[in-house]
Amino acid sequence: MILEKLKAVTTLIFDVDGVLTTGDVLATPSGELLRTFNIKDGYALQLAVKRGYHVCIISGGKGEAMEKRFAGLGIPDIHLGVGDKVEVFEKYLEKYNIQAAEVLYMGDDVPDFNVMQLVGIATCPADATNDIKAISSYISPFNGGKTAVRDVIEKVMKLQGSWFDEKPLASDSGK
Amino acid sequence: MILEKLKAVTTLIFDVDGVLTTGDVLATPSGELLRTFNIKDGYALQLAVKRGYHVCIISGGKGEAMEKRFAGLGIPDIHLGVGDKVEVFEKYLEKYNIQAAEVLYMGDDVPDFNVMQLVGIATCPADATNDIKAISSYISPFNGGKTAVRDVIEKVMKLQGSWFDEKPLASDSGK
Amino acid sequence: MILEKLKAVTTLIFDVDGVLTTGDVLATPSGELLRTFNIKDGYALQLAVKRGYHVCIISGGKGEAMEKRFAGLGIPDIHLGVGDKVEVFEKYLEKYNIQAAEVLYMGDDVPDFNVMQLVGIATCPADATNDIKAISSYISPFNGGKTAVRDVIEKVMKLQGSWFDEKPLASDSGK
Amino acid sequence: MILEKLKAVTTLIFDVDGVLTTGDVLATPSGELLRTFNIKDGYALQLAVKRGYHVCIISGGKGEAMEKRFAGLGIPDIHLGVGDKVEVFEKYLEKYNIQAAEVLYMGDDVPDFNVMQLVGIATCPADATNDIKAISSYISPFNGGKTAVRDVIEKVMKLQGSWFDEKPLASDSGK
Repeated sequence: MILEKLKAVTTLIFDVDGVLTTGDVLATPSGELLRTFNIKDGYALQLAVKRGYHVCIISGGKGEAMEKRFAGLGIPDIHLGVGDKVEVFEKYLEKYNIQAAEVLYMGDDVPDFNVMQLVGIATCPADATNDIKAISSYISPFNGGKTAVRDVIEKVMKLQGSWFDEKPLASDSGK
Repeated sequence: MILEKLKAVTTLIFDVDGVLTTGDVLATPSGELLRTFNIKDGYALQLAVKRGYHVCIISGGKGEAMEKRFAGLGIPDIHLGVGDKVEVFEKYLEKYNIQAAEVLYMGDDVPDFNVMQLVGIATCPADATNDIKAISSYISPFNGGKTAVRDVIEKVMKLQGSWFDEKPLASDSGK
Repeated sequence: MILEKLKAVTTLIFDVDGVLTTGDVLATPSGELLRTFNIKDGYALQLAVKRGYHVCIISGGKGEAMEKRFAGLGIPDIHLGVGDKVEVFEKYLEKYNIQAAEVLYMGDDVPDFNVMQLVGIATCPADATNDIKAISSYISPFNGGKTAVRDVIEKVMKLQGSWFDEKPLASDSGK
Repeated sequence: MILEKLKAVTTLIFDVDGVLTTGDVLATPSGELLRTFNIKDGYALQLAVKRGYHVCIISGGKGEAMEKRFAGLGIPDIHLGVGDKVEVFEKYLEKYNIQAAEVLYMGDDVPDFNVMQLVGIATCPADATNDIKAISSYISPFNGGKTAVRDVIEKVMKLQGSWFDEKPLASDSGK
């Protein structure tokens, strides 16, 4: 049952392109691909870190811009340029002694397929590919880059009573 | 009654991300987050300043780009990188001897929650979070960054007869 | 009658923000506002110039980026940073000995209001302000920056039989 | 019959603006036009190359940014700044000894019109011009830049059983 599973979540892992972004990249003359992130997602990510959740990024993409963005939100585990997500996932669980059943993962496309079959709760944005939707326990009503990540984090934290235990500050704003 | 309240408005305060923008930020390799603003919002903001309204920005975000944008519109009070919006709000009211009942505020997310409970008219874009919608007197039919700000300013000014008292110039265009 | 008027059009004048763009501007740290243009609009603009139409840009906005974009399409009359659009419009007509009845103009907001009342055919994008829609002979089903300009140019040129009189080349692509 | 034709496809040719992008370009002060690409399209493009399909880009547009993007996906034939697409198309077929009937082409506007009448399967995004839709065998339900390209590649490869013959890797992610 999905609500029971959400109550057990201690760990939030996210793909980047198509999940934390719309999947769009701005191609620059230097060859770098620039990404656009949503502040509502950012707010939830930094709050989850502050409240003690394990928050982790695993992406095949890379770039200084996205690395700085995630570091700025306080995310401690940022894996970019990843070839095999399952391998990175298994090492991450080992590092923090996390059980797969405690993990919520959000992905949107083929490179997420294998790892999504290993986690407690596989989730995806509304515009994930059909193959990914087919293996997801929860499909957010929001698209990638358009608060799908905020949606799942807020759901988990509200269910666990950790969304607010103090007066919110603007400095929590994920800027 | 909302129309009565709108007639009393002398002061317009806006959050930035998700209100004056869609909430999207372009992450650059230097670590700066770049924002996209709408010219229709800009038109209304500069006109409100010219017509004598108090116009104020209070945002947890910061950056030279947004500072220059707001200064270019003639907005005199631009508070960026704000940790506690209530504190900044109260000092601002004191500075200009404004009553909270004269203030229209538009916010979209948790960091706006407390300050929105203090103002005369709390408003939000169509895509604000549910928690913010629940405490708003007026929910714009437009999304953040997609003329929600223009919508409330134009409503206030038309109601007060200040939208036009002279022939409009293209130099009022908010560019 | 609108079709009769369209047959008389020799001159196409466009506002920029909200017409040739969505109205969004990317604010950069240097203070410049960068705009996004649509290639389908660009295709129609360069073709209209090649076919001998008078094509003119009148905008309150300015910037090297937009100037280069319009020059690259071969548009001969580019008026940026304009304070009074009527004044520029009247001088433009005089320069080429054009009658106002031959002019199709597309605008979207207050700074276009006065000039739109002087032209043969006032048009606007689907997302123009209500005040502008109210004085438009034709409201495109497309939004600003989303092929509203292409829509009106293609309509005029197809009606006048000038959309194609030779095999199209990819070099006409408005790139 | 469309399914029979799709089974015969060995070659995938794409226009860029309006097909691999939304048709939007960000105009920069240097005069370069920057484009935004979708990672789901990128995933399919690099996989098609790896699986042995002929993949080719033919665009009237140009720029170092897009050249690097396509090269980064492993696409061997990238024709930018093209004036006559038919000429480039015919030389490309000759180079690899490809028959026109084996070619799937996706275009969206006038410069694609002639070449689309020569290929086995002419396709277009949902937001192509009406003239292009009228000569297309398949109209994707997705817009240009919004996974229309992914849609046709995935359809061809799934039909031919080449979408997966090995465990997918995140390094296939089109980043």
